Amino acid sequence: MIGEIIAIGDELTSGRILNTTSGYAARKLFEAGHTIHAMSTIGDAPALIGEALLQAITRVDFIIVTGGLGSTDDDLTNEAVSRALNRPTMPNLDILAQIRTHLHGRSAAPDDPLEKLAWLPSGAEAFDPSAAIAGYQLVHDDTPIFFLPGVPEEMIDLLNRIVLPKLAAWQPESGLVTCQRIYKIFGVAESEVNRCISTLNLAPPIRIGYYPVFPDVHLSVLIRATEKDDSRTRFETACRRVETALGSAIYGRDNDELEAIVGALLKKSGRWLATAESCSGGLLAHRVTRVAGSSSYFVGGAVVYANRLKSELLGVDPDLIERCGAVSSDVAAAMASGIRERCRTDIGVAITGIAGPDGGTDAKPIGTVFIGMADGDNCRVTRCRFSGDRHRIQNLAVHTGLNLLRLHLQGASEGETETTADRS
Amino acid sequence: MIGEIIAIGDELTSGRILNTTSGYAARKLFEAGHTIHAMSTIGDAPALIGEALLQAITRVDFIIVTGGLGSTDDDLTNEAVSRALNRPTMPNLDILAQIRTHLHGRSAAPDDPLEKLAWLPSGAEAFDPSAAIAGYQLVHDDTPIFFLPGVPEEMIDLLNRIVLPKLAAWQPESGLVTCQRIYKIFGVAESEVNRCISTLNLAPPIRIGYYPVFPDVHLSVLIRATEKDDSRTRFETACRRVETALGSAIYGRDNDELEAIVGALLKKSGRWLATAESCSGGLLAHRVTRVAGSSSYFVGGAVVYANRLKSELLGVDPDLIERCGAVSSDVAAAMASGIRERCRTDIGVAITGIAGPDGGTDAKPIGTVFIGMADGDNCRVTRCRFSGDRHRIQNLAVHTGLNLLRLHLQGASEGETETTADRS
Repeated sequence: MIGEIIAIGDELTSGRILNTTSGYAARKLFEAGHTIHAMSTIGDAPALIGEALLQAITRVDFIIVTGGLGSTDDDLTNEAVSRALNRPTMPNLDILAQIRTHLHGRSAAPDDPLEKLAWLPSGAEAFDPSAAIAGYQLVHDDTPIFFLPGVPEEMIDLLNRIVLPKLAAWQPESGLVTCQRIYKIFGVAESEVNRCISTLNLAPPIRIGYYPVFPDVHLSVLIRATEKDDSRTRFETACRRVETALGSAIYGRDNDELEAIVGALLKKSGRWLATAESCSGGLLAHRVTRVAGSSSYFVGGAVVYANRLKSELLGVDPDLIERCGAVSSDVAAAMASGIRERCRTDIGVAITGIAGPDGGTDAKPIGTVFIGMADGDNCRVTRCRFSGDRHRIQNLAVHTGLNLLRLHLQGASEGETETTADRS
Repeated sequence: MIGEIIAIGDELTSGRILNTTSGYAARKLFEAGHTIHAMSTIGDAPALIGEALLQAITRVDFIIVTGGLGSTDDDLTNEAVSRALNRPTMPNLDILAQIRTHLHGRSAAPDDPLEKLAWLPSGAEAFDPSAAIAGYQLVHDDTPIFFLPGVPEEMIDLLNRIVLPKLAAWQPESGLVTCQRIYKIFGVAESEVNRCISTLNLAPPIRIGYYPVFPDVHLSVLIRATEKDDSRTRFETACRRVETALGSAIYGRDNDELEAIVGALLKKSGRWLATAESCSGGLLAHRVTRVAGSSSYFVGGAVVYANRLKSELLGVDPDLIERCGAVSSDVAAAMASGIRERCRTDIGVAITGIAGPDGGTDAKPIGTVFIGMADGDNCRVTRCRFSGDRHRIQNLAVHTGLNLLRLHLQGASEGETETTADRS
């Protein structure tokens, strides 16, 4: 079915609170085979709420409205619905009784604002007559409209427990199955990925999407299929063709993270890692240790921000630093070998560069980064040139370092040709 | 002025990517005195995009559209705008020349998909003719429409650098002035902050808002004022009362970052810092080195994930580790003193703990973290108990470490009483 999501609240349109519930609902609905045409966020203004609702009714099969159901003065959803759909509010007697019982314990005021919770547009079916959570369903012009609280936990609970099953029952024959796979790609520009995949001529019902998600490119392969046809086979065939076309540029899929992929490769190969970082300042070690269980392949490392620490902690020859500069291929190699030896690991990875905003020269502008990788007696250095601000350069340096390590561990030829020392 | 924000992309309506840019834009526009009536999110469907645009033109003063400006097949914003507003796309010759110069280096294809970036709806004024970032402005029926990339960094850059100044110049006489200050608070629960501020009885037009922004609590003091009245004075008075009430629990305001606050304090005091990290795996050093210019107070440090490195790199007595455990007050103190001595700095900060998901015991459950701080001959250790998953514990440990360092450098009494070794 095709749906629309409307979120209500001044806290959203003023940007004070980030609307996360619409995105959550969209994902769950998408996974259940529905399509969301549009999501709107509207302030606490009854006229706008009504307008959005009336427009949605004419163009989609179902509507989800979140927020504005509470008891405070700025909760205006019921009033807006009542006016827009010409459905006067009436008290839900179950809810009213609950509220009065509840109030009896602490207040005698007959016009307590909490009673507002019981007044719903006519035709509303409350989800929870015990009134612990606000929320109801209304069918208007054959269109089911679900009104849910704006509080994320409550909305998520009602969506999963009530709305998704109701929608599944509404048009049981319509349900499509969605197959989607996300490929995560690093080191190849989005336009290059597009060019490469275009040559495969993957035609509908296969749908391909490209999304830059810094610093990666995500490629989505999607098919919406009924169980009866051969769509699942077509989906798997398309995925295999994408994998072949992009090869080792793909580092993972769906929820994979690069540091976890690298960790699994290290663990599988039985090799231990140590890191030495200058311009990345500990971010590489942090990425590695975000992974649970990283202590089975990572021993630690050094952050050698000051040049004297490069010598004192890693044994880099001060003359070499003087002669070549701290940001150089030779120093990157010496750092990688040094940390490997000091920590007695199989592999040492080192990053030295100029993250900015100061320190760039004509020969070595801001964004120049050398990544050294020492494995046994081999040591390779890759010279990179990144653009952007300090944070971007630090993140790109570390992501590139992890990716080079992945390619090295996978024995991929792409990695080897990119990482010869003479490139620097 | 009254505006509307339209975000475009299947990755948003399918819930695959959370739309954070609309909320960011809404906040910045709100702070600049504008009001956002509605925010819409629409899939890659030209008809729906056009419909949303035409509707917005009739009801608001300006429109911001994000996403769908790239070179891939699913980037359809320009096509949709062209159709809906009856403005045929034409090549922007500056951008086209840039793309061809860029392509010349690597490809001779005359119909390269990158050239799509140069074809804009007629009347479009590109923000960046060097074509490094997509984005343009169009004035239709006297309504300025700003088309920005969906990539958050690029969108944020153009919004701040171009869109906000242009809007300010569009109707200079309109609008209220918004005074808003965000106080950033760490180490005090939201409900405690609320209780504390409630006693001040700050009344309208001063508006107070609380929101948890992990791991901080943000407190907003807001007034919307015309230049003529005394609102600015009232705003400053309210701010001073909030500052007095919360004292050193406030670590910064607005865009302040804790690591930058700590860096400024180190620089001011002329003291040098080194770090030693076990469970936080480099995140503390990373946070410190995110700050530009951190090399003037930070020399580096060690990530000592394996116990043997705690001894080899920091000189922690292996017997001490054996006797007390690597996660202990004594080892935290030895790590802090050790890194301070090895790196010959004034201050050494060390973090050792159990980030999980494994490794917890009854005596030291997951989330137990010891933070050591050695300054000269003094060494204090704080024992903490954090809850949540591995990432949350790592982040809380580092944020707490930075905050303890801030309080120490500020000589705040809160810090001293919290960080005595005997608490562990």
